Parts: sequence; structure tokens; C-alpha cells
Amino acid sequence: MAKELTSRSENYSQWYNDLVVKAGLAENSAVRGCMVIKPYGYAIWEKMQAALDKMFKETGHENAYFPLFIPKSFFSKEASHVDGFAKECAVVTHYRLKNDPNGKGVIVDETAKLEEELIVRPTSETIIWNTYKNWIQSYRDLPILINQWANVVRWEMRTRLFLRTAEFLWQEGHTAHATYEEAMAEARQMLDVYANFAENWLALPVIKGYKSENERFAGALDTFAIEALMQDGKALQAGTSHFLGQNFAKAFDVKYLSKEGKLEYVWATSWGVSTRLMGALIMAHSDDNGLVLPPKLAPTQVVIIPIYKKIAELEIISEKVAGIVKRLRDRGITVKYDDRDTQKPGWKFAQYELQGYPIRLAIGPRDLENGTVELARRDTLTKETMQQEGIEIYIENLLVEIQKSIYAKALKFRDENITFVDNYEDFKNILENKGGFVAAFWDGTKETEERIKEETKATIRCIPFEYENSAGNCVYTGKPSTQKALFAKAY
Amino acid sequence: MAKELTSRSENYSQWYNDLVVKAGLAENSAVRGCMVIKPYGYAIWEKMQAALDKMFKETGHENAYFPLFIPKSFFSKEASHVDGFAKECAVVTHYRLKNDPNGKGVIVDETAKLEEELIVRPTSETIIWNTYKNWIQSYRDLPILINQWANVVRWEMRTRLFLRTAEFLWQEGHTAHATYEEAMAEARQMLDVYANFAENWLALPVIKGYKSENERFAGALDTFAIEALMQDGKALQAGTSHFLGQNFAKAFDVKYLSKEGKLEYVWATSWGVSTRLMGALIMAHSDDNGLVLPPKLAPTQVVIIPIYKKIAELEIISEKVAGIVKRLRDRGITVKYDDRDTQKPGWKFAQYELQGYPIRLAIGPRDLENGTVELARRDTLTKETMQQEGIEIYIENLLVEIQKSIYAKALKFRDENITFVDNYEDFKNILENKGGFVAAFWDGTKETEERIKEETKATIRCIPFEYENSAGNCVYTGKPSTQKALFAKAY
Repeated sequence: MAKELTSRSENYSQWYNDLVVKAGLAENSAVRGCMVIKPYGYAIWEKMQAALDKMFKETGHENAYFPLFIPKSFFSKEASHVDGFAKECAVVTHYRLKNDPNGKGVIVDETAKLEEELIVRPTSETIIWNTYKNWIQSYRDLPILINQWANVVRWEMRTRLFLRTAEFLWQEGHTAHATYEEAMAEARQMLDVYANFAENWLALPVIKGYKSENERFAGALDTFAIEALMQDGKALQAGTSHFLGQNFAKAFDVKYLSKEGKLEYVWATSWGVSTRLMGALIMAHSDDNGLVLPPKLAPTQVVIIPIYKKIAELEIISEKVAGIVKRLRDRGITVKYDDRDTQKPGWKFAQYELQGYPIRLAIGPRDLENGTVELARRDTLTKETMQQEGIEIYIENLLVEIQKSIYAKALKFRDENITFVDNYEDFKNILENKGGFVAAFWDGTKETEERIKEETKATIRCIPFEYENSAGNCVYTGKPSTQKALFAKAY
Repeated sequence: MAKELTSRSENYSQWYNDLVVKAGLAENSAVRGCMVIKPYGYAIWEKMQAALDKMFKETGHENAYFPLFIPKSFFSKEASHVDGFAKECAVVTHYRLKNDPNGKGVIVDETAKLEEELIVRPTSETIIWNTYKNWIQSYRDLPILINQWANVVRWEMRTRLFLRTAEFLWQEGHTAHATYEEAMAEARQMLDVYANFAENWLALPVIKGYKSENERFAGALDTFAIEALMQDGKALQAGTSHFLGQNFAKAFDVKYLSKEGKLEYVWATSWGVSTRLMGALIMAHSDDNGLVLPPKLAPTQVVIIPIYKKIAELEIISEKVAGIVKRLRDRGITVKYDDRDTQKPGWKFAQYELQGYPIRLAIGPRDLENGTVELARRDTLTKETMQQEGIEIYIENLLVEIQKSIYAKALKFRDENITFVDNYEDFKNILENKGGFVAAFWDGTKETEERIKEETKATIRCIPFEYENSAGNCVYTGKPSTQKALFAKAY
């Protein structure tokens, strides 16, 4: 199996696609741009969901569910929102099919035309704020801290599995607050939640920062983002949190009576991450043999494979394995024992390597004699022979070590690929020949940002919080600047 | 709050709607027929999902995700499926909006018309079997045991919160098997899973049986269902499991190479339950004071309310409560301490009664003196004064007792409302004056079934497994019959 993967150096994009399909993560469907998330891919997504959901609840949020459809007129209510979003959407115009009178299947019943078209949600600010209007009267009704797990649709023309699909799964948080400060603190808090999740679960180092006005969410006063670096030197936005000010409250007329008895517009945030994180996870860590998964997100952390010639050997091995499996499970470690006789061990080794099982154990007749087991580590591809006794303690620690090690490797790569430049020649040179993030002063204008994009294809990924309060000269215009931005070509 | 509920005897339907809205479970949205599931309602749904998901995984199923949209032509492939389903659907015809040249918001871009319309899934057999075609070559690829948690849309004309909505949430299992026997066993197994869930989680007694041909799922050879009885004497179908035979395999040309080297069509099942279960849960147990929740599905099992006049009293109460909360949580019991000073105890009592918190504790100054606490049970509305010491053990047992007691009450009601009749006069009389299930022999013909429906509005809810192998005469035609069916008016 594994040898059929295109290598990263040969064609990174093809490698990614091969990997997603061959590791059983996802595939294209019969509907243009919509993917099928296969069981193994979905199991990883479920792990992500569970971890995020817990973090959301620990920060006081509740889940709810809002309609899939949004009346077309809602999109016109927030002027900057419509400009940013309303273009490429799935539009529902009819509500009935009928049998084709010519007997060729079904056709749309033209008499069943909706008075107002419905848009399949590309994001839910409008329908949610239209709902919040009825939930909010006084300061006692605030804050509202709600998250929704849902599918959304954006009619993308060029799609790639997980990274950019017409339909994708995501969560969208939508909160309502009495004050600017509280809403701003919420938006920043959720960015921290995302960064924490990225670093401690995805093992993905991220840079937190502001988006430039150009790259802001449609309708937001500020968009905060976490940006990560992929192995090919391109950046990937892994999550965003938006401070929406009072824009949606004004568009949907949502006011509250303050403690002081004054009617005020409500302050808002929204924040989301999506199945795009699957793409980030895959591209950040995997290698030419297949997927490399951080143990915390691996659906199964340990796979055990028996090596035998005779059934009698298998029986003794299986007995030994049963004990190991139990001891591992008692420690909360997920294990699979693959004793299928329809596949050879070599095939199984390649398969689990391709699917990124963090640890593989193999036990053969010689191991039985010696009380040993062969342990292979997916991330480093190293093998060692270990005593069976106490193996569960060793593995418990090793899983923590692997999680850290995958992160450390990604961090080292990322840090080596942030280049600080102070002139445009170097800027272009680095982007062309090295890739990665280029950190440079920028004069803060849309015009400069757009010219740089035209000339180099690099966009401002974010203005990192950690670069705040520095001063220099714009790398493009030479004008004085207080904004050091991170540029990169991006997914 | 609670006193604003319409009583059941006054208007059962209004009572239900009042309860759903006032207890914060769901409400209608701006989109006709689509509901907003509010946080408290969604929290109950999450509990249901978690329990079902665990049961599905324990029986070997995995989750996956298939597209929201289905190409229109897919519906024509399985002839009986299209007849049953393709009528009332949301149809996507365009993929872009544009600014209205007259400056009045956005309009549909007529140039962005899809070549083939897409249907928002009303159920996913067609798109899934079109996918399975590529996954199945040999018997080694079988069985496929997949479940999907998703939203679906059926353009219902008359909608009611949870019970019948245009968009609803559900799970749909879709399995593929090598043999008739295996598929049939799977369909029956999943019906048992649903019955187990209904009885042990929803505290809802159900009757398992076959659907008549009339009531079968479009494309199924057999539909199995669990049927429950609501307090107003109407039946509610709480879950279905379908044996699909080889119908979808033939429609989508899905064959496998058997061990014997022969190409065979694959056997299929599908099975689902939806947010409709929320409606069943509410209608089966609740009373004129509000929701009654089985403890296993209550988002919070115990609420504690302090009764005090002075802040100093509150402080001492809060200290005591902290200990009780900790001891309850240590036993895995969910607890909320509501010490808000913005609402009076009486308001809180009514609110938690309305929302069906199974146990309410109140602690006042006299309780502090006596080391006691007042415990109120939501299902029976009884109160008792208990010693604080050991209260956690009492509550742990009481929660089990309440779960059983709610079930027993529903079972008694259900059993009292199954009436066996052997003549049509009694049949009509019972339906008219007593309601509930009427058990009677039926000659097995569509014609008789339809006439009974026309004359009495009662449909065959199922042919219970437990009535199999009995014989008598059809209650309508007097013809010899081996099928004893359960009739009722139904939701």
C-alpha cells in the first residue's frame, strides 16, 4: 500500500491527495466539491470534536442548533457581511419534485417555487442574530455563550479534500455581550482555546495575531487567527475568532436594557474551526510512508501484530497479547490486536504505517521464548526490542513522549522557516527560494498589501501579537511602520 | 412561569407547544418549518446522542459523513424509493447570488444555474450506496457497518416542534452484508438497540413489530419499528430499522465476489432515530407543571437552592452546599447550585420544575440548625426532610428509583391502553372513547387497512412480534387472519 504514495519531494500536492485517499480518511463524492469523510478520518475528527467541545464547555459555553437555511433577505442586512459572503452559495428555490410526465425519473415541480429563496448557511451570524433578538431584553439575559456543531456550504470552484470543500463540518461559536470589553475578552479567550488545542492536541505550533483589514471576516471589526506552517513552506489558517462589535446587533436591531436603564446595542463575537484542521494535521506531520498522528488524536494508539507460522504459535501469542491488551486498556490506552489471517504481517505493517498508528507491537515465536516484543514508533520509524513485562508503563510514557516529539519537530521546522527581512529584494528572494513565513514591517495600507500579493503571491497571514509595539520601515514602500506582519503563500 | 402552561386536559396540543417553548427546549425559526434547538433542549439531545453512539460502537459500527446534497437523478434509480420520498424536498438550483443592480440587496445570479439540480438529503440511501459501490469488491470488504449523525430535510407542510419539522437532526445507519441472514439479523439487532435505549434511557415502553406494506419505508422489503404511547392516547413511532434486501445494491449496481468466486448483489439495512425522540420524551412523562425527565437524560440531575434572608446566612449555607456538591459529583451526579440573588426561591422552584430537574434540594437557616435539607422529587412532586449526612448515597439510589418509577408509570399507562377487540363496533368505540392501542386481527390486505384508516383515522402501527403465530378473524372483513395488528391514531 504505502509504496503507492507519491513522495513529498516529487509532488507535495499529489502526496497529500494520495495520502488522504489511501489512508482511508476521505474521498470525493458524486457531488462536485463535496467529500465523503470515511470512518478512519471521521474517527480523528470525533477526537478533535470531543477535545474542543470539552474546552468550550469548560469556558462556559453551551451547544445549540440553528436552521440550515437562511432567508436570502437576511444577507442584505449587514452591508459588509453580504459583500464578503453572499456570492458563492447553494440556493434553494423549490420545495418539490414530481414524476417526469415523459417517464424519465423526476423533475422539479415548477409550481412549488419558494416565495423567497433560501440559502444553505455559509455561516450563521445572520440567522442567529435574528434569533438572539428575541432572547435578549435586559442585561440579565447576557452574556449568551453558544456554540453550534454544523455543516456549512460555500460554493468553492477549486476544491481539495479537507482543505477547501463546498460542504464542510465545523463549529461556530456566537456570543452576545453587554460591553465592548467583555466581547473583546471573549474573542481573545477563544483564540487562546484554539491555540491551546492546536499545540497540545494537533501538536501544531501556531502564531496568534490580528488579520489585516483585507483578510478580516466580513462584518468583523477585528479578526484574530492562528496561523500554522505546513511542510511545503505554505501557511495554513487553522482557526479564527472575530470581534464583531455591534455590527450584527445593529443589523438585526438587538438591544438590551442596561443596569442603568439605558437601551444599548449588544456586542458580539463569533469563532470557528473546521474539518480543515484535518488537512493541517495531515500536512504538518506526515511523511512519505503515510500519516503521522499525535497520540492524543489517534483513534487507536497501539496496534499489535502476531508473527507466526503455525496456528499453535498464534494461540500462545494471542494469550500473551490478551494480557498486554488488558494492561494497556486499564491505563486508558486504545489498542487493536490484528490477528486476521487474510493478510500477511508485512502488509499489515505497511497499512498501519500508512494510517499513522503511533505504536506498533509485533510478537513472534522468538519473543515468546525471550519474553520480549518488538516495538516500532511511527513518528521516528525506529524499532526496539522490549521486555513484555512493564511494557504498559513504557508505552504510557512513550505516548506522551511521541506527542511532545511531534510537536517539537514541527516547532523546529516552523521556527527555522520564519525569516525576518528588512528589504524587498530579500523578501522576494526568501519567498521564492526558501518559503515559509517572512516577517517584515508593513505600512498598514491595503494598497501595499495588494501589490505585494500581486508581485509575490504572498498574503499577510497575521500581525502577530508578539510583534506588537515594534517600529521600523515598510519593506515595500519604506514608510515608517509600527506593524510587523507575517507574510506567506498560503492554503 | 409554570402556571402559564396550558393544562393537558384543556388542550394537550397547546400544552405540548407551551412546554417546549417555555422550558427552553426549542422554538420556531424565521425559516418556515425549521426549528431552533435551544441550549437546554440540545443538552438533552446530546445525552441521547452519547448513549446511542456508545451502543452503536459496542455493536461494531463506525461513524462517517456523506454529502448533504444528492444529485436529482439518484432518486430515480430505486423505483419504489422515489415514489416514497422524492416529492417534498428542498431543491438547490443555483450556486451564486449577486448584488441587485437596483441596489436592493441580493438576488439569485441566473447565470449560475446548476446543470443538474441537487436535493438536500431527506435520507441518504442513494448517495451512500453510490459510494459503497466503490468500496465493495469482495466478501472481504463486508460487512460495512456505518452510522452517520446528520441533518436532513423533508418539506413538511404542517410542522410541530420536534415531532415534525422540515429540518431535523438524526442518525442513519447504513450497512452492507454478504447474506440475507446477516442483513436481517442486523436489522433486528438495531431494533433491539433502539428498544433498549427507549426503555432504559427514555424510560419509554415500546412495542416492537413489523410495519404493514403500506407503512414500510420506500425501498424496504421489511420495516421494523418501535411504537410508543403518548399520554393523550396517540401512538408515536420512536424508531425504525429497515431490511432493504438487495434493492439498493441492484439500483446502484453493488456486487461482491463471494468466497465461492461468484458475483452477488450486496444485502442492505438502514435504521434511524431522530430529534422526534425529544417529542416522545416530553409527551410521555411530563405534567401540567412542566417537563419530567428521566435522570439518565437530565442535563443536570440535582439543583440546590439556598433559602436565606441575610448574606451571612447565605455564606454558611453555601459552605454546607459546597460539601454536598462535591460528594454528589464524586459519584458522577450532575449538580447545579443556584445562588443567584436576582430571583426569589419560589421563582426558582417553579423554573426547575418546569425544566424537569429530577431532584431539588433546598437549604434554609432551620436546616442549618438541624443538619437537614429539603428534598423534592420532580416526578412525584413529593417533598421530604432529610439529614445532610449521607444525602449523596440517598440521592444516588433515588435517581435509579426515579428512572425506574417513570418507566413503570408509563408502562402501566401503556398496558392499560392496549385494548383487544374482536369486532368492528368495539374497535370504533374504543378508538373514539378510550384511545390508545387497539389490538385486532387483520386480513393482511391494503384495502382493509385503508378503509379502517378512512373510517377511524387509525393506522396499523405495527404487527407486534409478540403476537406472531396467532390466528383469528379480521376485525373488519371477518376473513381468516394470522396477523394480529396494533392500530392507533398516531403522531
